[in-house]
Amino acid sequence: MARSSEVCRSNCPINFVLETFGDKWTLLIVRDLMFKGKRTYGEFLESDERISTNILADRLKRLEEHEIVEKTVAPDNRSKLIYSLTPKGKDLLPVMLEITAWSAKHDATTNTPNSFLDMFAAAKDKMMSAILSELE
Amino acid sequence: MARSSEVCRSNCPINFVLETFGDKWTLLIVRDLMFKGKRTYGEFLESDERISTNILADRLKRLEEHEIVEKTVAPDNRSKLIYSLTPKGKDLLPVMLEITAWSAKHDATTNTPNSFLDMFAAAKDKMMSAILSELE
Repeated sequence: MARSSEVCRSNCPINFVLETFGDKWTLLIVRDLMFKGKRTYGEFLESDERISTNILADRLKRLEEHEIVEKTVAPDNRSKLIYSLTPKGKDLLPVMLEITAWSAKHDATTNTPNSFLDMFAAAKDKMMSAILSELE
Repeated sequence: MARSSEVCRSNCPINFVLETFGDKWTLLIVRDLMFKGKRTYGEFLESDERISTNILADRLKRLEEHEIVEKTVAPDNRSKLIYSLTPKGKDLLPVMLEITAWSAKHDATTNTPNSFLDMFAAAKDKMMSAILSELE
């Protein structure tokens, strides 16, 4: 954890996440790695949101410092870097799923596959039923 | 929805959330309303993260435009404004819970009550069990 150089203003868990991500670009990189199969600097640059090169470089560095992303040299091309999520980064999946579900409910223009939403809704229904049956 | 004045750069659901929140201060206000019982401008200013008055005013305005927060006049003092989460704002609870769980797992300095984590872990275990039993 490369926290020593930063001022962490409170011990609140939500603030911790927000100090880690800092801004929206950081989380969009996580999204590209998690759901869009992107792995290289050039692929991140191609995203619809048009991240700039200096922001991308800064946010990748920050994600590496926080051990959310790691980079390796491509086996077939030693001048090419491959980025991937660490286990800590992969643990962000539930956060990303809840963000997706909230957007799908509240933004008519959000483009979320129905198959994904159906799967997610079914899993949540099961959880609710299980909890309610315990309470009966 | 006050989206007309904004450039929404993609229809990705995760980008929608990030366009809505924009930066960490916005989500910290949601946290204060959801978990800390804060309801007034003065109470938000007192948070450990030390939000500045101009940022607070801007972010409250943005949250109102997105219909995540609403304000009313205090019944006992007509010069006092009370802020609260709308139903759309309350729907952010699962996102906030997953953020909290992630921080508790990955940040040793995060201050999350054990009772809360136990409750949350139990609910997730039930969901996993229910899903796995369906697959057997």
